[in-house]
Amino acid sequence: MTPMTPMPIGEFELITRLTQNLPSRPGVSLGIGDDCAILDPGDDLLLLATCDSQVEGIHFTFQTSTPEQIGHKALAVNLSDIAAMGGEPRYALVSLILPQHLSLAVLDGIYTGLRQEAAQFTTAIVGGNIASAGKGEQLIIDITLLGTIERGHALLRSGAHVGDTLFVTGSPGDSAAGLYTLLHPDQAYPQEALDVLHAAHCTPRPRVREGRILSQFGPAVVTAMLDISDGLSGDLFHLCERSHIGVLIEMARLPISPSLRAVAAGTARNPFVWMLHGGEDYELLFTIAPGHEKAIVEAVQSATGTSLTAIGTIRPPQDGMKLLWPDGREEVLIPQSWDHLKKL
Amino acid sequence: MTPMTPMPIGEFELITRLTQNLPSRPGVSLGIGDDCAILDPGDDLLLLATCDSQVEGIHFTFQTSTPEQIGHKALAVNLSDIAAMGGEPRYALVSLILPQHLSLAVLDGIYTGLRQEAAQFTTAIVGGNIASAGKGEQLIIDITLLGTIERGHALLRSGAHVGDTLFVTGSPGDSAAGLYTLLHPDQAYPQEALDVLHAAHCTPRPRVREGRILSQFGPAVVTAMLDISDGLSGDLFHLCERSHIGVLIEMARLPISPSLRAVAAGTARNPFVWMLHGGEDYELLFTIAPGHEKAIVEAVQSATGTSLTAIGTIRPPQDGMKLLWPDGREEVLIPQSWDHLKKL
Repeated sequence: MTPMTPMPIGEFELITRLTQNLPSRPGVSLGIGDDCAILDPGDDLLLLATCDSQVEGIHFTFQTSTPEQIGHKALAVNLSDIAAMGGEPRYALVSLILPQHLSLAVLDGIYTGLRQEAAQFTTAIVGGNIASAGKGEQLIIDITLLGTIERGHALLRSGAHVGDTLFVTGSPGDSAAGLYTLLHPDQAYPQEALDVLHAAHCTPRPRVREGRILSQFGPAVVTAMLDISDGLSGDLFHLCERSHIGVLIEMARLPISPSLRAVAAGTARNPFVWMLHGGEDYELLFTIAPGHEKAIVEAVQSATGTSLTAIGTIRPPQDGMKLLWPDGREEVLIPQSWDHLKKL
Repeated sequence: MTPMTPMPIGEFELITRLTQNLPSRPGVSLGIGDDCAILDPGDDLLLLATCDSQVEGIHFTFQTSTPEQIGHKALAVNLSDIAAMGGEPRYALVSLILPQHLSLAVLDGIYTGLRQEAAQFTTAIVGGNIASAGKGEQLIIDITLLGTIERGHALLRSGAHVGDTLFVTGSPGDSAAGLYTLLHPDQAYPQEALDVLHAAHCTPRPRVREGRILSQFGPAVVTAMLDISDGLSGDLFHLCERSHIGVLIEMARLPISPSLRAVAAGTARNPFVWMLHGGEDYELLFTIAPGHEKAIVEAVQSATGTSLTAIGTIRPPQDGMKLLWPDGREEVLIPQSWDHLKKL
């Protein structure tokens, strides 16, 4: 029996509380607070470390995803954190908490997904742990991923400057729209849109190659970067906070995908809510110093085919986070971050 | 709803099954199967990586441990894996799965324990993750620990040779005896014995310093090593399997602690069952090449005060695992490994 008092604070406040006064030591270049920690074992390459767990009923269900997709995504969300620093993924440790009723076939499927995703991003699964959930009913997959980054090339959240241009990869919102269609299967959707949105939600593609290209330009050019796993508005808030800046998002520039547009129209949902506040997109959000925009866009798009879109401009911190609508009206953007403790 | 079929195989078989055909990559010196993976980012120091989770109701309960002890132990079990390779612990990532009813005070206590243990073993907590358990009722603490080891100095499970002497640190069995007293609080025990055994179970002391000294001698002298977190007999079986050897344990030499002896006598329990098969000892079990025994014992004991005991001899594989009783009788030792899926 765990002592019974509800958790009175949110995820990020809790992280701050728990991680204050942690002992440090030489060799830690960057501790808690970015996408990855940066470790310095004393070589030309720095080490990146991140971990992220997927809890049945919170991050996935067996109704909406196959075992293979669950395995794929459990690694993909970690790959995205390495991508968000511009790093190269290398080594993964997989920790499983297994409920009694889980079948071996399901586990095999999960590992098939893990293996395929690891192979695609040249990652070795080097270790892990298996524990019983005892009376617990939920499968939990907790992965730690290590990567490397050339010294001086890690792209942090903290480097954006006034005048930089804000870019995003791909089409934010597709994952949230995909989840909506999975949770509302009774409605009619165009099959082509469903395929795109389900893939965005169930088998997100971490932007590792895009991140690698961006980090080669270095932080003087790509001044800040993070992934938008918590949603565009929430992660933009992290960027503003860590870089001490404000931002103006041009709504007319938001790269809305045809699939999201089709599903939003068919369900009378506001597509901008999914785009701005839907989580689990695993796209990269980054800022480019003036004069380098064209070179960056060409380098990434020619090598990867992934679209990059300039969606806004970095402004002074006192300007806050604002949306610019096509009619010239500015609106304050209130971040709605995905808080993993919201359901507590 | 997870598909419902009971898990028909044990932990180690499951690990083998899941980890076959994993993609590898350059820079992995040693993958799955030892206490840690060994990674080679290309420097004089190799990287060790391990992870271990503590699940409420399986590895700990709030009846038998304080939050501080739970935090302490969650890190200690990982430190022991680094110690078991002779490595120096460096960086930890802490992943928490939080049930709804967990109080902030309990979490603070757990982090106090984590912090103290990290500080004692010069480990930096560099990252982590927090997720909600949703409807789940159990707290889960999953830690990944990274360490370093000088190139050529890692002590593996696979290097023991016929004629080597088998050593163990400290007094195996104390943890299991401590758990017994915690689960049977109605019986009378000497307080002094309780203090020792409870500490062994609730706040085990990972043998990091001892492991560091042993690895300085290198694998030509300290031919194999692992920790006995799964119990002496179970981990000895791993040693025999990986080194392709047999072993003869001299029962008269087993270092039974006065506390364990007192509790065993008072409860009419067989102390050898705790010593041979009790898990969670976090002592080191290692083999020494002929002629080096005295130097090793003196080096470790003078620097750390930790007792080392020669408990047996490595024999050819066809001899199997045997116990030698004081009357000269040899008995086959059947390993009873702690299988984390036993309760599935």
